[in-house]
Amino acid sequence: MLTAIVMIDATPAQIPEVAVAVTAIPGVSEVYSVTGDTDLIAIVRVKDHEDLASVVADGINKIPGILRTQTNLAFRTYSPADLDQAFDLGLGD
Amino acid sequence: MLTAIVMIDATPAQIPEVAVAVTAIPGVSEVYSVTGDTDLIAIVRVKDHEDLASVVADGINKIPGILRTQTNLAFRTYSPADLDQAFDLGLGD
Amino acid sequence: MLTAIVMIDATPAQIPEVAVAVTAIPGVSEVYSVTGDTDLIAIVRVKDHEDLASVVADGINKIPGILRTQTNLAFRTYSPADLDQAFDLGLGD
Amino acid sequence: MLTAIVMIDATPAQIPEVAVAVTAIPGVSEVYSVTGDTDLIAIVRVKDHEDLASVVADGINKIPGILRTQTNLAFRTYSPADLDQAFDLGLGD
Amino acid sequence: MLTAIVMIDATPAQIPEVAVAVTAIPGVSEVYSVTGDTDLIAIVRVKDHEDLASVVADGINKIPGILRTQTNLAFRTYSPADLDQAFDLGLGD
Amino acid sequence: MLTAIVMIDATPAQIPEVAVAVTAIPGVSEVYSVTGDTDLIAIVRVKDHEDLASVVADGINKIPGILRTQTNLAFRTYSPADLDQAFDLGLGD
Amino acid sequence: MLTAIVMIDATPAQIPEVAVAVTAIPGVSEVYSVTGDTDLIAIVRVKDHEDLASVVADGINKIPGILRTQTNLAFRTYSPADLDQAFDLGLGD
Amino acid sequence: MLTAIVMIDATPAQIPEVAVAVTAIPGVSEVYSVTGDTDLIAIVRVKDHEDLASVVADGINKIPGILRTQTNLAFRTYSPADLDQAFDLGLGD
Amino acid sequence: MLTAIVMIDATPAQIPEVAVAVTAIPGVSEVYSVTGDTDLIAIVRVKDHEDLASVVADGINKIPGILRTQTNLAFRTYSPADLDQAFDLGLGD
Amino acid sequence: MLTAIVMIDATPAQIPEVAVAVTAIPGVSEVYSVTGDTDLIAIVRVKDHEDLASVVADGINKIPGILRTQTNLAFRTYSPADLDQAFDLGLGD
Repeated sequence: MLTAIVMIDATPAQIPEVAVAVTAIPGVSEVYSVTGDTDLIAIVRVKDHEDLASVVADGINKIPGILRTQTNLAFRTYSPADLDQAFDLGLGD
Repeated sequence: MLTAIVMIDATPAQIPEVAVAVTAIPGVSEVYSVTGDTDLIAIVRVKDHEDLASVVADGINKIPGILRTQTNLAFRTYSPADLDQAFDLGLGD
Repeated sequence: MLTAIVMIDATPAQIPEVAVAVTAIPGVSEVYSVTGDTDLIAIVRVKDHEDLASVVADGINKIPGILRTQTNLAFRTYSPADLDQAFDLGLGD
Repeated sequence: MLTAIVMIDATPAQIPEVAVAVTAIPGVSEVYSVTGDTDLIAIVRVKDHEDLASVVADGINKIPGILRTQTNLAFRTYSPADLDQAFDLGLGD
Repeated sequence: MLTAIVMIDATPAQIPEVAVAVTAIPGVSEVYSVTGDTDLIAIVRVKDHEDLASVVADGINKIPGILRTQTNLAFRTYSPADLDQAFDLGLGD
Repeated sequence: MLTAIVMIDATPAQIPEVAVAVTAIPGVSEVYSVTGDTDLIAIVRVKDHEDLASVVADGINKIPGILRTQTNLAFRTYSPADLDQAFDLGLGD
Repeated sequence: MLTAIVMIDATPAQIPEVAVAVTAIPGVSEVYSVTGDTDLIAIVRVKDHEDLASVVADGINKIPGILRTQTNLAFRTYSPADLDQAFDLGLGD
Repeated sequence: MLTAIVMIDATPAQIPEVAVAVTAIPGVSEVYSVTGDTDLIAIVRVKDHEDLASVVADGINKIPGILRTQTNLAFRTYSPADLDQAFDLGLGD
Repeated sequence: MLTAIVMIDATPAQIPEVAVAVTAIPGVSEVYSVTGDTDLIAIVRVKDHEDLASVVADGINKIPGILRTQTNLAFRTYSPADLDQAFDLGLGD
Repeated sequence: MLTAIVMIDATPAQIPEVAVAVTAIPGVSEVYSVTGDTDLIAIVRVKDHEDLASVVADGINKIPGILRTQTNLAFRTYSPADLDQAFDLGLGD
């Protein structure tokens, strides 16, 4: 499973509507309206790159009100569960 | 529950080690090594702001190798489940 | 009580009118026309995140003339009164 | 009374200590640890420019751990109270 | 007397006309067409902040062709005459 | 006479000392400690380019604590006096 | 043979169509839809500079939907094969 | 096969040596010394994300002299051959 | 003789036409279509500042398709011939 | 003959010395100390790319005091003489 974190800048007046439209795209697992210098952050979880292209290039980017998107693809994931497992196997030190 | 998405720039040579250290902080649910112009993205889920301050200001920021962090706090969350529910209640149109 | 400091870029010719419109939004405690590379700074004080979303996403962002907004949410507050109290309790050194 | 909103970038590991040191400077009314692309925001309220120079140039800037400061001085202030008053006087329309 | 140095970006084709319009605003003491990454620099000298707001927010910003303005307000002034005086008083070493 | 407006970024803790050192350089007519995203602005008035090079490259840039300087040279100057004169000559319309 | 790597920003909604149009230009060897803060990266391989000018200035830049292009021309190329050869000749140490 | 285009900023004096070191990493197919605002561009071709992480996070980033790297991962590839094939199948119009 | 190096950003589709128009302006000695993050670089050689203002403010900036120009004025020139001469006079060591 | 325009940022205190060192490199035809947001601009004229790499990567970049260089390579040159010739041949309209 691929995870991508997509930063979305939108026209200020259309941010809530853009958020709903992005959330409706299959492959988008959640969308946050956030503080900071980006307007929305979408978490995308898909099977492969072609799906990612459909969600981002053919999906999110086509929504009216979107000014810019920047996709950060996760190529390595760390979770507390992994760390615990590593420590159990003595790999931690 | 508060969700924050924290962008982390780290010294290139220490990125994997920083990722492990960040993941070990209570309140951090996952950390991604990502493509794009930030090095790591941490998803933080905590009870309240004071916890967020402990995780970010007293936790992540203290890790050697961290150059800059930028916290994007989610103040509104959209999920496919919410949309389905809204449509069920006829709020969708 | 949540405090957010919202940076607002507006069309130069509409800055005073935008300032008045932002000030009229419930939850906005004051707005400053400022020097520096942002046009207006609004101090927002609200009960919770949902209120913050209403003030920023459904309120400020909808005002004609607004080009970009950037919300900085305070997750820890320091005041001289707190410091005095801390020193009284001998926590200061 | 002059109001200035000072953006402060600090070495990540020293942000809490810097916040306390800034808060202790006479003229600083509150300091926030914030989300977004600045680390701290200090609200400064002083009598005149010379005081402002003392607080910023001779005070805040001298604190170890400070990387950059950017002062936004308020040259016009809008508050809900002013608007109410203006409406009472029929100036609002 | 307050001094402010205002950076002005204007539509390239209208820079000379914008310069003349800015110069005509009471409170503007001179305007320079400059090299570098800003188009015009206006030196504003006014009595107080309210005047500064009128010159910048109600004056300069309203001129057609202005894209962005950034006001740098002087809060401390150094001149050779001050230095000479300080040296005469033995404050210089 | 050439006029140049020099933006100066300096180490925060050394700004006042840098201001005094810059002011002492022959050719510098005044230096301002300013709000906004630059620390100091120096107004330089010299006879020709070689003098400008001495003041900036051999003078200002050599002062300890200076991080970056950016020189904006005025190649056309507008003043209210010029405008009045132009109007007297009927050139104004 | 000259190699150039061209960064392309396009209107989000037209990225796939722009990619196809760029790919059709003689001299373009491949185009990638990418993560990160640029939308497309085109690899151009041509005989000489005049060809490069035709591909970029007269070709890519003329495609509707293109916002900005930035051409990075390779003036020295390193490949594993070169390294192996260099090591064979004892130039490696 | 995954393709990534990695932008590399290096200490100016070490660029040639960094280029050789990057080229020696398995998975790097070529490295270019380029004009423009990045120093080197590496083309990486690997089997999967874990390999990409090893090449970038555990390989390139560990090389002395590297200041910053930015990985652009290709999630959709267009080539003239694909276009010809598409046209043959009548998909082109 | 004054030398200025003018960076020109233009609408991508009009770069060649803008280059021809700029070249036709008296005082422009050559124009380059370049790689990197600017589109054109014009070398301007004029007698004095008023001429420079005419070439840039009244000439280049008025050309349709120009988005931004940035003028870098040379205030000191170094050439191999000067160095040779300096060495001949024993000033070199 | 290849022409490249190289932007050079240097440590402020070493700009004149860096300028002399760059000028001494074979292939550099002139160096300017300039206004604006870059410190020096070098005009490089060489036979081919390998020479360009020697001048920039092995020459300029190795000079102590250089912080960053950005090479803009000319891939099409326009000069008044070309225009006159084109007009003579009736190509101008």
